[in-house]
Amino acid sequence: MYVGIDVGGTAIKAGVVDEKGNIISRGSVDSRPDSGAETVRLMYVAMTHALDRGMISRGDITAVGIGSTGLCDNRRGTVIYSPNIAYDNTPVREYFMERIDARIDVGNDANCAAVGEYFASGESRGSFVFVTLGTGVGGGIIIDNKLLRGVNGGAGELGHTTLFPGGRRCGCGREGCWEAYASVTGLIRDAEERGGWFAARQKIDGRTPFEGAAAGIPEAVEVRDNWIRNVAIGVNNLVNIFQPDRLVIGGAISREGDTLISPIREFVSKNAYTRGVSGIRQTEISAARLGNDAGIVGAAFLHKIQ
Amino acid sequence: MYVGIDVGGTAIKAGVVDEKGNIISRGSVDSRPDSGAETVRLMYVAMTHALDRGMISRGDITAVGIGSTGLCDNRRGTVIYSPNIAYDNTPVREYFMERIDARIDVGNDANCAAVGEYFASGESRGSFVFVTLGTGVGGGIIIDNKLLRGVNGGAGELGHTTLFPGGRRCGCGREGCWEAYASVTGLIRDAEERGGWFAARQKIDGRTPFEGAAAGIPEAVEVRDNWIRNVAIGVNNLVNIFQPDRLVIGGAISREGDTLISPIREFVSKNAYTRGVSGIRQTEISAARLGNDAGIVGAAFLHKIQ
Repeated sequence: MYVGIDVGGTAIKAGVVDEKGNIISRGSVDSRPDSGAETVRLMYVAMTHALDRGMISRGDITAVGIGSTGLCDNRRGTVIYSPNIAYDNTPVREYFMERIDARIDVGNDANCAAVGEYFASGESRGSFVFVTLGTGVGGGIIIDNKLLRGVNGGAGELGHTTLFPGGRRCGCGREGCWEAYASVTGLIRDAEERGGWFAARQKIDGRTPFEGAAAGIPEAVEVRDNWIRNVAIGVNNLVNIFQPDRLVIGGAISREGDTLISPIREFVSKNAYTRGVSGIRQTEISAARLGNDAGIVGAAFLHKIQ
Repeated sequence: MYVGIDVGGTAIKAGVVDEKGNIISRGSVDSRPDSGAETVRLMYVAMTHALDRGMISRGDITAVGIGSTGLCDNRRGTVIYSPNIAYDNTPVREYFMERIDARIDVGNDANCAAVGEYFASGESRGSFVFVTLGTGVGGGIIIDNKLLRGVNGGAGELGHTTLFPGGRRCGCGREGCWEAYASVTGLIRDAEERGGWFAARQKIDGRTPFEGAAAGIPEAVEVRDNWIRNVAIGVNNLVNIFQPDRLVIGGAISREGDTLISPIREFVSKNAYTRGVSGIRQTEISAARLGNDAGIVGAAFLHKIQ
């Protein structure tokens, strides 16, 4: 059995994961954004909770994977840096290896979610791109069963590709990033800026435009469709770069299913560079399957994909 | 020794290439855009010319690589389709194997140029992104010594990522592609649209804005710097996606050297997602080394990288 740990700025979640990707037991503690060293200790505490709750012995765990916000160096087993947690080349593997006899891997949290969805979405072959739409837009790329980490652990920051030069301010401080448009944060902003029906809502979240559109509200249809189009433009860019076997779209909003995925598929079928070439394979685009558990399962499976 | 063949819509160029990447002899014939089958025959003619001129025997050739415009399927050894030549799943490997006892590989021309620059730019490791700025914008991606071909041979169409949604019409029929801005065609259009000093030129080519800017002409500085910025935005996007070890910029205009490369490096150092994280490696950005020969050398070296 494996342990996957998903470390965000708010919570540290651990799960004991079996060979099939089922989460057998879970543990969770609050994050300590002010201290990388303390965060590592709490990762271990979260793991211990998960083991204790499942009455699972340390000796049954052969691999532990840690998916954290930030840049990870899996050769050294460290988290280099995160904008959300005060890491500073913090040694994660060392801490765990002193306490458990298992293989220890580290990776970026969105990259880990990509690994989880990769294994959940079928056979392991060719190239795979994962895009997650949430507060931000993240992702991960797997090619020939290997996670693309880049020269510094920072590969897969798909949301920080510029889509509208000089456009909306992004959380990263730059202007016009895809994330500023295609994130759920961007969708909510679109709705707020649109006003009309939206102005009368008590609270707007990512579902509001989808619910309004389903009820036939014109402003909601407009905001939803425009947002989906901005998602689709970026997805199409990734298709033209990678022509991957599979591209999976995750984040809570991917639960909208075909309402979200069908128009993206249609956009790509009309805009990919290979459109109109008959008799060739095209990228399969689908919604994520694991939801919030992708990070835990992917971290637990990191050792399968190095 | 190897043979590399570079097939474009105008000319088919062949070269006999040694182990170090030197082109020993060359042959060239005109293309036949109206016929894929005839184009394959002419590839063979171009190779024969190169062999004859170098007085090299077929028996000394262990590998032949064909880099062609369009989508290539190296498993089947075919060129699937090209917008410039009337291929239709045209069997290239079969034709050559009936005539020469060597390994035969096929690949997209820009992908082949990437392979050439990859070997020319130093040690083979990590991930490598090549961008070529010419009539269009093409490229290629090499990860762990393997060319990224994608599910249909179409990977690496870097120029057809949307950078300005709703923007300039691209040669591919869509709007706002990076290519419409970052190609030399885009640069010439910028100059023509800018007018002023440019309107008095008899002929504007890609060098004109660089020459004018070097002479201190304000409109030329403006056009050049704006164009470089549009190139840099797209390069930065690729850095954020791949965080490659190396990114090389090719095409004839890359002979401008540091005038082009330095501002791109500066832009990326200020805009990459990993900017400001100290103590980590960053992508090395440099100009191409092989110039027009990259396609021939890369095709000849295709067998080294499968």
